[in-house]
Amino acid sequence: MTNEVILLDFWPSMFGMRTRIALREKGVEFEYREEDLRNKSPLLLQMNPIHKKIPVLIHNGKPVNESIIQVQYIDEVWSHKSPILPSDPYQRAQARFWADFIDKKMYDAQRKVWATKGEEQETGKKDFIEILKTLESELGDKPYFAGDDFGYVDIALIGFSTWFPAYEKFGNFSVEQECPKLTAWVKKCLQRESVAKSLPEPEKVTEFVSMLRTKFVAE
Amino acid sequence: MTNEVILLDFWPSMFGMRTRIALREKGVEFEYREEDLRNKSPLLLQMNPIHKKIPVLIHNGKPVNESIIQVQYIDEVWSHKSPILPSDPYQRAQARFWADFIDKKMYDAQRKVWATKGEEQETGKKDFIEILKTLESELGDKPYFAGDDFGYVDIALIGFSTWFPAYEKFGNFSVEQECPKLTAWVKKCLQRESVAKSLPEPEKVTEFVSMLRTKFVAE
Repeated sequence: MTNEVILLDFWPSMFGMRTRIALREKGVEFEYREEDLRNKSPLLLQMNPIHKKIPVLIHNGKPVNESIIQVQYIDEVWSHKSPILPSDPYQRAQARFWADFIDKKMYDAQRKVWATKGEEQETGKKDFIEILKTLESELGDKPYFAGDDFGYVDIALIGFSTWFPAYEKFGNFSVEQECPKLTAWVKKCLQRESVAKSLPEPEKVTEFVSMLRTKFVAE
Repeated sequence: MTNEVILLDFWPSMFGMRTRIALREKGVEFEYREEDLRNKSPLLLQMNPIHKKIPVLIHNGKPVNESIIQVQYIDEVWSHKSPILPSDPYQRAQARFWADFIDKKMYDAQRKVWATKGEEQETGKKDFIEILKTLESELGDKPYFAGDDFGYVDIALIGFSTWFPAYEKFGNFSVEQECPKLTAWVKKCLQRESVAKSLPEPEKVTEFVSMLRTKFVAE
């Protein structure tokens, strides 16, 4: 069976990064198509009519939407190598719990760090650091979230690290000082080819976030 | 291996209902423990320190949190009968997409129907009916969301039906008129023992919601 895999994505998306990494972990060749989010392609609107959001994974013409669902789909279709979720049901549930925690908590909190000011920003920053510390405590002294092997929670979280310098710049704090173990984990993840190839330069992300901030916040 | 299964739950919770149904679909005996959410038990706080929310599934002393993760866990541990998720990866991704849609959209919208008034309530009601119509359109003429077999999306959604009369009372609309196919689907689901045993009387839910509304809304 031939596999035609297309990914509709936007380079600074921490959600798109998940799917890129999962595909590369499995050694799946794919066509990356950059979307202009101010002028979404007809294909994006056709393939994700409900949310109209990237990333969209199109496998042999059929769409899979929502990054964390794409990662599970990729793990199930290309199950012959590099398992992403653990095989034990309890460990799978734990991995799903932490990916869900990231999805429920991180995005809104991080957004407040760079897209607001004053009291709202201070509260957002406090919340965001608390979330990072909760994740740091879950990581503990393990090399990766599930233990010795890179996997689901690592994939769910690592994309946010490209935004860390922007959070530090606009939130005026140091992720490394607050969360040294998480910082070491980021460095370890970046040694993997699947991650290194899928993540943009943090400097480019910071430029992009600065541009967004100018739009959203009148200083 | 003995299986000790405890469910910390609260009777009107549409999320708790998911886990009750999944356990009963699998024929798993479990101890149901009602929580007082104004005075949460030490066990709840110990078993779900991150969210401090019900339902909590405790299997042989170990907690699994978040209802949709519990349903997947139950499906994976008791995999010998009544599959909840389809076996095909693409159909699994579709089922996960719709359960995620329900989780992202339904709760906040339904809350506005009964816990607000005026313009906020009107917007909430409009959004809520649109969400129901999207689900009705996905269901189409199939008996269940995945086709002929009761499964994951049915379990994710059916608990909300016990709240429908409350939405109708306070939102002043008819679910049956707006969504006749969804209404027929509710009736079909209720014929299953796993569902009938797990859902409270809608009249009791309406009383409970009326009490909550008195607290939240000064009419």
